[in-house]
Amino acid sequence: MSHRRILGIDPGSRATGFGVIDVLGHERHYVASGCIKTPPGAALPERIRVIVAGLIEVIDAYAPTEAAIEQVFVNVNPAATLMLGQARGAAISALVLKKLAVAEYTALQVKQSVVGHGKAAKEQVQHMVVHALKLSGTPQSDAADALAVALTHANHSHAALAGLVARGFKVRGGRLV
Amino acid sequence: MSHRRILGIDPGSRATGFGVIDVLGHERHYVASGCIKTPPGAALPERIRVIVAGLIEVIDAYAPTEAAIEQVFVNVNPAATLMLGQARGAAISALVLKKLAVAEYTALQVKQSVVGHGKAAKEQVQHMVVHALKLSGTPQSDAADALAVALTHANHSHAALAGLVARGFKVRGGRLV
Repeated sequence: MSHRRILGIDPGSRATGFGVIDVLGHERHYVASGCIKTPPGAALPERIRVIVAGLIEVIDAYAPTEAAIEQVFVNVNPAATLMLGQARGAAISALVLKKLAVAEYTALQVKQSVVGHGKAAKEQVQHMVVHALKLSGTPQSDAADALAVALTHANHSHAALAGLVARGFKVRGGRLV
Repeated sequence: MSHRRILGIDPGSRATGFGVIDVLGHERHYVASGCIKTPPGAALPERIRVIVAGLIEVIDAYAPTEAAIEQVFVNVNPAATLMLGQARGAAISALVLKKLAVAEYTALQVKQSVVGHGKAAKEQVQHMVVHALKLSGTPQSDAADALAVALTHANHSHAALAGLVARGFKVRGGRLV
């Protein structure tokens, strides 16, 4: 089986979390994680520039072979929904520009995959991320969420699927589309 | 006065209109316009890839010196608002990746600038675009809207402002930010 390195993304208008893991059979190894913060009060194009440039830097540094991004819930505040959509569009732009296949997972799928049930609290998800990747400390919240998305993709996508992804097929929610 | 070439964008989840004009003092000359259509039914990452790749192709082909994009109104349908936000985020990603300063204008500002009042119908805007650029026919709707955004930016941004933009300052709604 070829080496797989997954970049997980937790998109947000103020902070975009990222987490990189290696998948070796049933083993998952932590590579890197962090958070790209957009300058508060900056105009939208500048915030989008920071997200795109930041993620391209991460991809160039860690060379993931595939990517997964959390599907965002629709906010009750329409302006906030639009802003979150723009930030998520910028994050996906960076991923597709670097020619990564992009899988999408809902928060429910992430909780079910990482904790085992869909009603898990945020702290439980973080605890399981620390456990699964044998981390010595708890990563910052957005980074932990991004690592959870990467772990979900590792769990969903089997070896056969990974092979298809490598050959250019598209996967959504762990399924081919 | 240095040569200015403006790329106007009308963002949308199904179609992204673009329009390129040259500004020479008070003259405006049509350069190009068109519409980038996203494949219906395709997964979001693929739609975003089409928008980003399409706009980068336009920028490489016509080499605009600055860009302007319409601010979208918040839809009553939250899922549609999120989708539109993601498409707009992708469009702005392409502009900032190609290092263009990006100005934003509301639909109201575009109507006021191109027609003279904010209650103008869509057809009036298209008519004025045809008139101002001496076009022999009416462009497709999204392309006409994008040309209107470019004309609005030409009208709002004075020579001094354009000089500042060229030196890396940010402009929003025709004003420095």
